[in-house]
Amino acid sequence: MIEVEVKIPIENIEKIKQKLLETGFIYQKTVVETDTYFISDHYDMRKKDKALRIRKTENLDTGEVKAQLNCKGPKLDQVSMTRKETEIDIYEPEKMEDILKELEFYPASCRVKKTRGYYIKDHMTAAADKVENLGNFLELEIIVAKEEERAGGLDMIYELMRMLGCEKTETVRDSYLSMLEKRGN
Amino acid sequence: MIEVEVKIPIENIEKIKQKLLETGFIYQKTVVETDTYFISDHYDMRKKDKALRIRKTENLDTGEVKAQLNCKGPKLDQVSMTRKETEIDIYEPEKMEDILKELEFYPASCRVKKTRGYYIKDHMTAAADKVENLGNFLELEIIVAKEEERAGGLDMIYELMRMLGCEKTETVRDSYLSMLEKRGN
Repeated sequence: MIEVEVKIPIENIEKIKQKLLETGFIYQKTVVETDTYFISDHYDMRKKDKALRIRKTENLDTGEVKAQLNCKGPKLDQVSMTRKETEIDIYEPEKMEDILKELEFYPASCRVKKTRGYYIKDHMTAAADKVENLGNFLELEIIVAKEEERAGGLDMIYELMRMLGCEKTETVRDSYLSMLEKRGN
Repeated sequence: MIEVEVKIPIENIEKIKQKLLETGFIYQKTVVETDTYFISDHYDMRKKDKALRIRKTENLDTGEVKAQLNCKGPKLDQVSMTRKETEIDIYEPEKMEDILKELEFYPASCRVKKTRGYYIKDHMTAAADKVENLGNFLELEIIVAKEEERAGGLDMIYELMRMLGCEKTETVRDSYLSMLEKRGN
């Protein structure tokens, strides 16, 4: 399974949501995701190309709150963005944070908080994101089975972008975390 | 709240269980606790006087299985054994182990596995332990509210030991982990 993903900064997020519905996308849910990344003096996460994160998710439609601990390993090859990723549900995120602090892993200064609207159509997922201190973005994702299907998946995303009025040249490749770090937030 | 605790090696664990019942103790449950401790080259848990542990518990009476991640901070003073201890329930212990390994915390060679029968009487708890590769032990614990009550609590434990036929001189102070490490298990 390969994720083909494109991210585009957008001005008017409500307009994009409306266009997604008009294009046949179905609204799924709106969540607030708050990501705290952990770093350490004795273990350089960046140098190791790893990331350790606690994500708290609040579903704005149902009020449901949950949390997960996630650890990303280094990229597995030079071509794709594939990483080994391990994630577990945690039921007391504050206590998990205490344990990490006891091991001298501390929250990084950048917290990534976004309100994300999820929309789906066939194999495609659209996320309309309002990112705190960063702006609005649209993420479009399609899952393909094999490397050979990646180009086709990307074409489908570009076709959708055309329908939504987004330009190929507008896409960005940085993660929200690195964008925030570059801005010094 | 202060834990007053005494540990005594015992020969015949079934005889001790019988005596506990005769002394008015009430049987609670029997569990198998398997403790995996984690150590790291980049963070010396022993030097920091800390411990990181995943405990898997199987209740032999009900079949219930659960797991917890536990982190002990250093002893808070020179007199008592009091430590800051943080513990959370985890529902996928194998994945938690994977995350710790990704952060280069690996299982220590010593695993502490014990079958523990719990018995209670008033404010006292008795644990009859069969420890894998180590032998049988009886742990007696009483919780007192203040430091001044510690001596009184210890006297109650000694009185119980007399009734059970255990000698004061037989008590041991080491943890099962350090006993196993000394034996080279």
